[in-house]
Amino acid sequence: MRIIVDVMGGDNAPDAIALGAIQAAEEFSVEVILVGRGEAILQCLKAHGVQTLPKGVEIANAEGVVDMHDDPATILKTRKDSSMVVGLQMLRDGAGDAFVSAGSTGALLSAATLIVKRVKGIRRAALSPVAPTKTGNGAVLIDCGATAECTPEFLLQFGFMGSYYARRMLGVENPRVALLNIGEEDTKGCALQKQTYQLLKKAGDAGYINFTGNIEARGVLFGEADVIVADGFSGNILLKSIEGTALFMSSLMKDMFKRNVLTMLGALFCRKGIQNIKNKMDYRETGGTAFIGLTKPVIKAHGSSDARAIRSAVRQAMQAAQADISADIAANIDKMTVPKELEHAE
Amino acid sequence: MRIIVDVMGGDNAPDAIALGAIQAAEEFSVEVILVGRGEAILQCLKAHGVQTLPKGVEIANAEGVVDMHDDPATILKTRKDSSMVVGLQMLRDGAGDAFVSAGSTGALLSAATLIVKRVKGIRRAALSPVAPTKTGNGAVLIDCGATAECTPEFLLQFGFMGSYYARRMLGVENPRVALLNIGEEDTKGCALQKQTYQLLKKAGDAGYINFTGNIEARGVLFGEADVIVADGFSGNILLKSIEGTALFMSSLMKDMFKRNVLTMLGALFCRKGIQNIKNKMDYRETGGTAFIGLTKPVIKAHGSSDARAIRSAVRQAMQAAQADISADIAANIDKMTVPKELEHAE
Repeated sequence: MRIIVDVMGGDNAPDAIALGAIQAAEEFSVEVILVGRGEAILQCLKAHGVQTLPKGVEIANAEGVVDMHDDPATILKTRKDSSMVVGLQMLRDGAGDAFVSAGSTGALLSAATLIVKRVKGIRRAALSPVAPTKTGNGAVLIDCGATAECTPEFLLQFGFMGSYYARRMLGVENPRVALLNIGEEDTKGCALQKQTYQLLKKAGDAGYINFTGNIEARGVLFGEADVIVADGFSGNILLKSIEGTALFMSSLMKDMFKRNVLTMLGALFCRKGIQNIKNKMDYRETGGTAFIGLTKPVIKAHGSSDARAIRSAVRQAMQAAQADISADIAANIDKMTVPKELEHAE
Repeated sequence: MRIIVDVMGGDNAPDAIALGAIQAAEEFSVEVILVGRGEAILQCLKAHGVQTLPKGVEIANAEGVVDMHDDPATILKTRKDSSMVVGLQMLRDGAGDAFVSAGSTGALLSAATLIVKRVKGIRRAALSPVAPTKTGNGAVLIDCGATAECTPEFLLQFGFMGSYYARRMLGVENPRVALLNIGEEDTKGCALQKQTYQLLKKAGDAGYINFTGNIEARGVLFGEADVIVADGFSGNILLKSIEGTALFMSSLMKDMFKRNVLTMLGALFCRKGIQNIKNKMDYRETGGTAFIGLTKPVIKAHGSSDARAIRSAVRQAMQAAQADISADIAANIDKMTVPKELEHAE
């Protein structure tokens, strides 16, 4: 297996990206292709004591870099020599099995959709991070910001795609798919939720997915469902609220432990538990966010990824390549298409 | 000052509600009117050792009770003898200065809007809880679920109303009003957010409010704004995610402290800090959720309110009656109305 890594994307590029990718290559016996400025990559590796490229690690030269200020819609034209565009083209052409980038989310989504393409029949690719849960293997949040404004059909497809992802990547036999809403009754929410509920219910009744109804935001981390279906706007609010509140609570905890000598001693006693909490909430352990709905796996690593986070993202890319969710989607696409006359787009 | 309390609403009615209201009457020297089944109230007070009604506490008899399963739209007809409807009518007629209920949110919103009425020109009343913040006095989240589907004009009015609330109730001189969105740039979000951004910006430029731009969900608890403007759907997702994640983190903390004898000792050392965190996240200390935009103050107490929570809600109702935000709103209503031809409702 071979993973293509965009070495020039992210706050800590190229050093942390290159080092993390090499770590992954050594640890997981996977081949990696480092896409970016060859000179710069070799120099940074040398600076970190890596004199020659380890076995299974290659460099593919690309001089350009996608900037956070680039307009995502035009980077195929304005940044065609960039590590992101070149890497995605290599993925499309079969030079590797999956692609990892810590670059701009908007640019990556736009370029990946244009180059790698969506599975035929899929209306929108979705950004699908996995949230930690109190019980179980985590919950797939789909979509979390790729498409702010959605139609019921988009959400129906997210339900299927998330279900395949939870089964193949999280190992959940019969994933519970729920619709993010502001109450449990089927009359809750806006027109979008009401219409989507009916589509998901039909798919559930037909046995295509295991639709369990609406879920309130409160229940997500308590493992009430394995797949949380949402439009990109609400999903992003959910994800960012979880992140913000977790950070907030962690900072209150820090304050609690820093009060005096005794509380610091308390922190010492609790260090294993503190580490457990950190691991549970830490994206550096869990990898990046998958773009689901494309023909091949594309993983968005966190913008502030360090080497450890990139290593995890490469591992996740390997799993995604093995899982091949796009095959599941393609095989079932007729079950998740809404006839034009039934589709009431908002 | 006199506060009207719906004694029959909420999971712990009537006991906890009556006791909490009496506590408030004694502690804050305020008059309270307990609306509900007179016999039941007297009996429950006796059972808790209260033999006669304290000075300043009255009972107003109402035999009916609004049920969680009642259709909010029809309770004025089907539950006209209920404590909720009778209490709201007393508020309208000037028998008291504010109303507190822990009953069904939907029923309360519907009945309050029909009986107490919105301030003239206000399109929708909003549910506006105050979230704790790392720095500062908390953030007003407006709306959090009263109106799932909103227009830009609703949101513009929420910006003004939230600003008055933050100034009068939280004591913030020049409240920073921000729009909940999935990025900071003014092109982010759905059509609703893009249009609302322009309206709020105009109001900010005119000096009517202190509009500071978009805010991501991540920044809410870190005090990046004093007023968070959102449609009821997104606002509810935000609120419930915060609640859920705080509960989740608390349960992880509990696990951390319960590992062994040493960690339990650690918990003992940290008990002050633990109490601080609890207080920060505890609605029983901060009171209920205000309905903003009505002609008189209506406070929704948490459904699971105990006596302490009701006591806090009565205190909040007193403050709201004193603050008289509806006067601010009425005096400025012409600044927050969008001419029909400029209003692009979704």
